[in-house]
Amino acid sequence: MNERMEHKSNRPRRDRLYEIIFEADTPAGKWFDIALIVVILLSVLTVMLDSVASIQARYGRWLYVLEWLFTILFTVEYILRLLCVGNIRRYATSFFGIVDLVAILPSYLNLVVFGTRYLLVVRILRVLRIFRILKLGQYTKEAGVLRAALYASRRRIVVFLCFVLTLVVIIGSLMYLIEGPTNSGFTSIPQSVYWAIVTLTTVGYGDISPQTPLGQFLASIVMILGYSIIAVPTGIVTVEWSQATMRKQPHARACPTCGAGGHDIDARYCKFCGADL
Amino acid sequence: MNERMEHKSNRPRRDRLYEIIFEADTPAGKWFDIALIVVILLSVLTVMLDSVASIQARYGRWLYVLEWLFTILFTVEYILRLLCVGNIRRYATSFFGIVDLVAILPSYLNLVVFGTRYLLVVRILRVLRIFRILKLGQYTKEAGVLRAALYASRRRIVVFLCFVLTLVVIIGSLMYLIEGPTNSGFTSIPQSVYWAIVTLTTVGYGDISPQTPLGQFLASIVMILGYSIIAVPTGIVTVEWSQATMRKQPHARACPTCGAGGHDIDARYCKFCGADL
Amino acid sequence: MNERMEHKSNRPRRDRLYEIIFEADTPAGKWFDIALIVVILLSVLTVMLDSVASIQARYGRWLYVLEWLFTILFTVEYILRLLCVGNIRRYATSFFGIVDLVAILPSYLNLVVFGTRYLLVVRILRVLRIFRILKLGQYTKEAGVLRAALYASRRRIVVFLCFVLTLVVIIGSLMYLIEGPTNSGFTSIPQSVYWAIVTLTTVGYGDISPQTPLGQFLASIVMILGYSIIAVPTGIVTVEWSQATMRKQPHARACPTCGAGGHDIDARYCKFCGADL
Amino acid sequence: MNERMEHKSNRPRRDRLYEIIFEADTPAGKWFDIALIVVILLSVLTVMLDSVASIQARYGRWLYVLEWLFTILFTVEYILRLLCVGNIRRYATSFFGIVDLVAILPSYLNLVVFGTRYLLVVRILRVLRIFRILKLGQYTKEAGVLRAALYASRRRIVVFLCFVLTLVVIIGSLMYLIEGPTNSGFTSIPQSVYWAIVTLTTVGYGDISPQTPLGQFLASIVMILGYSIIAVPTGIVTVEWSQATMRKQPHARACPTCGAGGHDIDARYCKFCGADL
Repeated sequence: MNERMEHKSNRPRRDRLYEIIFEADTPAGKWFDIALIVVILLSVLTVMLDSVASIQARYGRWLYVLEWLFTILFTVEYILRLLCVGNIRRYATSFFGIVDLVAILPSYLNLVVFGTRYLLVVRILRVLRIFRILKLGQYTKEAGVLRAALYASRRRIVVFLCFVLTLVVIIGSLMYLIEGPTNSGFTSIPQSVYWAIVTLTTVGYGDISPQTPLGQFLASIVMILGYSIIAVPTGIVTVEWSQATMRKQPHARACPTCGAGGHDIDARYCKFCGADL
Repeated sequence: MNERMEHKSNRPRRDRLYEIIFEADTPAGKWFDIALIVVILLSVLTVMLDSVASIQARYGRWLYVLEWLFTILFTVEYILRLLCVGNIRRYATSFFGIVDLVAILPSYLNLVVFGTRYLLVVRILRVLRIFRILKLGQYTKEAGVLRAALYASRRRIVVFLCFVLTLVVIIGSLMYLIEGPTNSGFTSIPQSVYWAIVTLTTVGYGDISPQTPLGQFLASIVMILGYSIIAVPTGIVTVEWSQATMRKQPHARACPTCGAGGHDIDARYCKFCGADL
Repeated sequence: MNERMEHKSNRPRRDRLYEIIFEADTPAGKWFDIALIVVILLSVLTVMLDSVASIQARYGRWLYVLEWLFTILFTVEYILRLLCVGNIRRYATSFFGIVDLVAILPSYLNLVVFGTRYLLVVRILRVLRIFRILKLGQYTKEAGVLRAALYASRRRIVVFLCFVLTLVVIIGSLMYLIEGPTNSGFTSIPQSVYWAIVTLTTVGYGDISPQTPLGQFLASIVMILGYSIIAVPTGIVTVEWSQATMRKQPHARACPTCGAGGHDIDARYCKFCGADL
Repeated sequence: MNERMEHKSNRPRRDRLYEIIFEADTPAGKWFDIALIVVILLSVLTVMLDSVASIQARYGRWLYVLEWLFTILFTVEYILRLLCVGNIRRYATSFFGIVDLVAILPSYLNLVVFGTRYLLVVRILRVLRIFRILKLGQYTKEAGVLRAALYASRRRIVVFLCFVLTLVVIIGSLMYLIEGPTNSGFTSIPQSVYWAIVTLTTVGYGDISPQTPLGQFLASIVMILGYSIIAVPTGIVTVEWSQATMRKQPHARACPTCGAGGHDIDARYCKFCGADL
């Protein structure tokens, strides 16, 4: 009976906890989210600074303490999430559920398995938790528009990527033939393809660069190509976006008399037949 | 009585001064603005040249004289602004009021505190005064459209920046694991994140570049990603802008009955009062 | 008679083969395409790895075996294509027909002519076969939209390229005059033009960079120019695309009387027959 | 009398010459233009190759002969233009008139003034003559649309450039303070501003790059800024262009019955009232 009572009084508390932790509509939920974001950013910063040799040498102890502080905080948070969520398995196997677990696991594993810097770097995935920010306010909708635009243009993106990859393979092979014998940078086709990607995307490290006149001529064409076809992904996103935004807008607002759509949000009369909207 | 007289004759002079200094509608105000812009650019150039060791060595004396000439000019201008403005406190605490003060203060402070090159560099903030140019003619409106478009798309920009930052943190950490042991450039996560930003934004200094095949492969993906997602900010601005411009456009077409503007090019009836257009 | 029988039973088998090899509407055809793409990618990878000295030294024998495996596979495929196609000459002289032949020829030629690494690199053109992927599903249409948009804007692209080429020639010559005497990078006009292209396209290798103040000033202008006029190809593609997409869009809205599509979203009467929509 | 006769028969010949040289509507005029473009490109190539030391050493004599061949060709062309043009002064002082003169003058001047490589490089301005290509076919219209779009957005471009210049001056000064004492690249403010331009425009030579953590942090912000605000010129051009294209399109086609515009080019009936167009 004690257990049932506890369960009873637990229900609303759990719901309220759920509201605070998983939602952002209440002030408490909003504050929780903001606090969480700050803690996440600080913990990511700690992991990053921990990898700097000079900082590690001087402040290593402090970073260690901070790291455990964040780990314990995230552990408590994870347990709370498990407690207040309706379907534990669904949460635990969801993307953010896994990220939440990955955020704390490496620190504990590090107690057992020593010296694995790979393990500690995994903690950087905490940064993914930042996307909980998108829960706040209007961000979900905006992220949705972005995702929809990307999804709608996925085929064009595949065509574009195919084209780019084919281009860099062929250009890389050509440059391997042209520059290969004399230039120490173009030693193999993969290396030349790497150069072609560096050039086509206008990154241009300069660690490998053509030396022969013919190589420089071909490189010039690649650069102008890269400079021009950057227009393609931009065009894809812009057009899709433009349409996604339009579709979202009140163009659905049809005139009840003549049936014509495309009315502005502030229109009171149909612009085609003059009837009330 | 003499004083009152002076005050009397001073009023319209002050108004006229205000017109010249703060506005650009009269020819005198226009010329004042153009002259001011030239002086500002010259003074910024002086500060810049003053930092070049060889020029400082040869023309240091001339630059010193010029600098004081500009300082006195700006001081006079600042006092005139204070005199002719209605609400002194409001002007003095406004953005441009502070910039105007910051433009002259370092030179005077330098008389008291010696050898502080930091202080002298502050004078470069004079360049901000150039934005008074936007007062001229149509520029205010254009700047307004730009600002409105940026404001309207602020949430998308936040989502985009979150995405980019998360990406560079994860990629940087991965590269730290892959290249770290062999490459002298990827010594810590912050350094690797810096490289990821240099690469994703297609800047590509080349001071740090991947050496291992796996590192180059990952770098290639980062480059193509950076090359593609540059489309996102472009798409955001273009779409917002397009709509901001459209909203601004058809204002010429006003309703003859109610006078309201903003009708579409294909509208036949006023959307506000329903009258024929 | 035996022969005729064989021929008889061969007909539908040939048609079915055609369906599998050349089309992607049947499950068998789809699977064939996917398998082909995998094999193509693997064979391209083999050619690329074969050019890496260290891999060639260790796994050269395996790569040789793999290479012949792919060559035989592609040869069988080529023969099957020749067998099941209606008009052999038309296929053999088509773009993909030639690519299919080029994909297998170098390996056989290499048996006769030795030591020609040029010959072996030609095999990389196999990557072009990947464009058969575009046959699958919606990709043909998307590629068509891309091609149409590029075709529609070909004149603007020519004007833009003329402008860019003129710009880099003039800037390159200017830099040759300015930097030439002191900078080891600007030894000739072609070299300086190469630098101008590297800079204008924002690639920026850094193997050649201006040293004199005047050269750096001019370079700054070139960079800002390059940063700005990248907007032109983007604008071209986006606008053309936007219109190509719009033209494609409202086809769903067909006239109930004459069946014609392509009506605007705000149309009330069919623009071809004048009937109510 | 002989003279008058010649003059008489000269008139139509002059008109015909004008048609061939200045216009591109007749087949002869088209062929003349194409031939001219080829000669211009070859002569520019000659000037460029002439500056390469190794080519000059081996083929100097041939280049000299070629150069004079082109000079004589252009001289004949220039004289013909002067002869057949109506208003000689107007042609001679027009942009292309001056370019035509500049294309031939350096070679003759070089006979008098020796050893001036500056003079010979001036000949590269011949490349500007290539813009006569825009006379052909549809190009004039396309170039006009480009020019109109740029002109319409000139104020936004000024605002954008002001913003960029202010940004690089302030960032450059900041980096001078941060990196100056330790980094050999940031020796003066102009040098640091140059670096800021190289970084903001995503060119990224890498000849100067930040070394301190704070400098790299600021550089990262500059890169992301540069990566994002490239959207602004693109947005400007795309939006202006989109509108310029729309304005050019048959939206002017108004319905004679209801007066509504915005009809497609293939519309036969008004989409709003159904009347014949």
